[in-house]
Amino acid sequence: MTLTGHMLIGQHSVAGSREAIRGIDPATDQALEPPYAGGSAEHVDQACALAWAALDAYRETTLDARAEFLESIAVEIEALGDDLINRAHAETGLPHPRLMGERGRTCQQLKMFARTVRAGEWLDVRVDSAQPQRQPMPRSDLRQRQIALGPVAVFGASNFPLAFSVAGGDTASALAAGCPVVVKAHSAHPGTSELVGRAVARAVKTCGLPEGVFSLLYGSGREVGIALVSDPRIKAVGFTGSRSGGPALIHAAQARPEPIPVYAEMSSINPVLLFPAALHNRAQALAEGFVGSLTLGAGQFCTNPGLVIALKGPALDAFIDATTRLVEVRAAQTMLTPGIFKAYESAVNALAENANARIAAAGQIGTGMNQGQAHVFVTEAAHFLADHTLQAEAFGAASLIVQCGSEDEIRQVTEHLEGQLTATLHLDEADLELARALLPTLERKAGRLLVNGWPTGVEVCDAMVHGGPFPATSDARTTSVGTAAILRFLRPVCYQDFPDSLLPSALKHANPLHLRRLLDGQREASNHGE
Amino acid sequence: MTLTGHMLIGQHSVAGSREAIRGIDPATDQALEPPYAGGSAEHVDQACALAWAALDAYRETTLDARAEFLESIAVEIEALGDDLINRAHAETGLPHPRLMGERGRTCQQLKMFARTVRAGEWLDVRVDSAQPQRQPMPRSDLRQRQIALGPVAVFGASNFPLAFSVAGGDTASALAAGCPVVVKAHSAHPGTSELVGRAVARAVKTCGLPEGVFSLLYGSGREVGIALVSDPRIKAVGFTGSRSGGPALIHAAQARPEPIPVYAEMSSINPVLLFPAALHNRAQALAEGFVGSLTLGAGQFCTNPGLVIALKGPALDAFIDATTRLVEVRAAQTMLTPGIFKAYESAVNALAENANARIAAAGQIGTGMNQGQAHVFVTEAAHFLADHTLQAEAFGAASLIVQCGSEDEIRQVTEHLEGQLTATLHLDEADLELARALLPTLERKAGRLLVNGWPTGVEVCDAMVHGGPFPATSDARTTSVGTAAILRFLRPVCYQDFPDSLLPSALKHANPLHLRRLLDGQREASNHGE
Repeated sequence: MTLTGHMLIGQHSVAGSREAIRGIDPATDQALEPPYAGGSAEHVDQACALAWAALDAYRETTLDARAEFLESIAVEIEALGDDLINRAHAETGLPHPRLMGERGRTCQQLKMFARTVRAGEWLDVRVDSAQPQRQPMPRSDLRQRQIALGPVAVFGASNFPLAFSVAGGDTASALAAGCPVVVKAHSAHPGTSELVGRAVARAVKTCGLPEGVFSLLYGSGREVGIALVSDPRIKAVGFTGSRSGGPALIHAAQARPEPIPVYAEMSSINPVLLFPAALHNRAQALAEGFVGSLTLGAGQFCTNPGLVIALKGPALDAFIDATTRLVEVRAAQTMLTPGIFKAYESAVNALAENANARIAAAGQIGTGMNQGQAHVFVTEAAHFLADHTLQAEAFGAASLIVQCGSEDEIRQVTEHLEGQLTATLHLDEADLELARALLPTLERKAGRLLVNGWPTGVEVCDAMVHGGPFPATSDARTTSVGTAAILRFLRPVCYQDFPDSLLPSALKHANPLHLRRLLDGQREASNHGE
Repeated sequence: MTLTGHMLIGQHSVAGSREAIRGIDPATDQALEPPYAGGSAEHVDQACALAWAALDAYRETTLDARAEFLESIAVEIEALGDDLINRAHAETGLPHPRLMGERGRTCQQLKMFARTVRAGEWLDVRVDSAQPQRQPMPRSDLRQRQIALGPVAVFGASNFPLAFSVAGGDTASALAAGCPVVVKAHSAHPGTSELVGRAVARAVKTCGLPEGVFSLLYGSGREVGIALVSDPRIKAVGFTGSRSGGPALIHAAQARPEPIPVYAEMSSINPVLLFPAALHNRAQALAEGFVGSLTLGAGQFCTNPGLVIALKGPALDAFIDATTRLVEVRAAQTMLTPGIFKAYESAVNALAENANARIAAAGQIGTGMNQGQAHVFVTEAAHFLADHTLQAEAFGAASLIVQCGSEDEIRQVTEHLEGQLTATLHLDEADLELARALLPTLERKAGRLLVNGWPTGVEVCDAMVHGGPFPATSDARTTSVGTAAILRFLRPVCYQDFPDSLLPSALKHANPLHLRRLLDGQREASNHGE
């Protein structure tokens, strides 16, 4: 497959007019062909105009047609074969097996949203039948469904070049909701983005959809990114990235004459609480699980365990010793980009120089370029409570162990945490009472709570929450992974006293979509009409 | 019942320390006793501290206990009897029957949320069972429920001193979601607020709930309002008011270290489209319906029909003539406050002086204080498209008729509209094709679409949407009326591999709350356990 270096504005391959970026092989710092010239505000305008033109038709596609489109994207991505994996490997340094797994996840995710679309629960159909005889006033016939919010701007993540990028969770859920999507490609993997973008565009064509359903732009965050978020035809934004990038987009979205929602996933250190009995009974096993999770993928996961909280004492000492031995033999790993490597080095250096923390373990030093070296630090609860910089995310395989002098200090440290994607509890039977006491705080802090697992695996399913209070995300009411992600791109509309012929299919009296509606206050057990 | 002029900080009656306001009888401009001294930042801090202390216990009350609390508030409000109606009449000028109807609606709304709480669908329970044998990786047991967002600040509206105020829709839905509420009373009806606030506080006590579940503050928007929205323990804001008040709160909410959602209902002119056949067949009846809706309650409804769109011609002329005759004999009505009256007068004067509009009809001039006089203006589509000021809401019984030269101009005018709470279509069989063509635009513009009705009645039910794109509200994804309003104050939490004893009731394997869960991708038909 030949890469063109061009953007996709609908079905049109368009060369950018601004400074070009290239993919960089982080293992060698070599620039890859072709160059990707950046788009301008004019390209943003063209993509948004097409998206807007596509909206009304696309959001009213049948459930089957929309589901088939999502499945068709998966087929097209699978058809890219090794070319996709090889290019993604060259651009990110991520190993082949990991990328193949990620591709599988990306395609499964599209198929999952296809099933969700077909099931139609997201339409949340509510019917209150007319009561013409009601006193003192008759009641109208009232019917509610959810409709697409409008065109969505998606900003992919660097650390999941497939599953959180061009055809990742944000794009899949927005398309599932009936929203056209304009993607601003992440500059760290432009070639991967082009391959996947062309796959999506082929699916648009195969399915006979309006071309504006999908566009892919390249360029600077400042020019293309802000222009995209500021365009009046864009009605929501999905973003996965850093604590510096998110707020800039949120600010632009709020500064519009019509402010729009931004779903930004930004920063999380994913606290892990080691409860006393569990720590006493299995310090070695916990250390093995911890180091495995910490160093997975060079630590470049949103859910990387960046904080460990436990009671000071011999059991914690044993855990720290075991962790140290495991970390010290860990090989360095190629990080995603030179920029991410530099940021990681600087975060680790800041911790190393912080008098409130001491270094417990460092992994092997790498010999190539951009080699991330694992690090574990230790601090005291009192320092953690006093020094806010100890809560900053170091994106990479670095973690901080907070030693607490009492159960009350554990509670204080937990209450002091910022919002998180996850919080993990390692506990045994004897720890249940303490865990129960901390649970209300943890529920307030994180979107997902785990017992006796590690946070780095994120299952794509109905019950997943990949979200959480600020700064984990900008909107704690939502998740960016799992079927509930579709709810981010919908809004309710009520139809009052509509003639049946003017009602959308989801709301017609005969219930042709066979939905289980909330009918006159009761959830329908079967899916017949009125 | 003796009014104290005091705030309610939990169960404590607290005198304010800032300048006092008094209720004003708008029919006479007389100040009413007692004075209500304003609260300070210290009072905000106290109320928020209590709300925070109440949160974890209140959000985990059983469904029955929470429902009984909501019902108990209704009982306490009903027990206020005539004192409430008399005070509300004195403070707002609204007639007794209207206030009695509004009281009924307020109490019905509380009882409706009690039913919603008991039904438990809002918990949106999703279960993905463990698959320990799955290859290549086992699947964890994953369970999702919704939990309360946290303490909510509520700013009541002037135009519904009961249904959109201290114990109105925002408070009822937040309490239903498990959120403690701190109300900043509207300065236009402090006595009514005190009566209702004490009723809520009695229900808190009767039900044995933590006192911080409810507080009621008085004071300036600038001091108390902004301090409340800025308090780190407040996690969401409900506001019903003007286009100037809403953005100030939104700005404060966004400027926090942890930004929070603001549900602000602000401004809507509620377009009414008179389709050609309907207009031809029943101009007189349409005029009667229109003027009735326009002048209801001195036009002081969020859903007042402030814009009429129709094809120019003899049928529209007949409608305008009939409207003129009906409006000219309409008596003036006492408006809610001297401030609202002044703002209405100034909006009407601006239209009267606008060369792009002509006055078609004016109602009777009133003889007392603050008498709102109905007004109807006429303009051309070209003017409406060119002059953005013609879309400004005149809060009161004023409306603008836009004469269109063609169906395409109707489409242009409709597409040019800002976001709305409602859009109304008056149509006959022969109009269906044109209505169908305009429907996609109207769906994008408004939260509720009505056929052959008038927008001023807002049914409190499952299917209602009282919401819409900006500037109608600050969050088109939601409604502030109806059972879906509860969804504004919730966020999802996922529990992974939790032992059953640590799971909340909603998620336990035996399904003790008898919820119809989304279990392994299927909605349960019955409500047994796993």
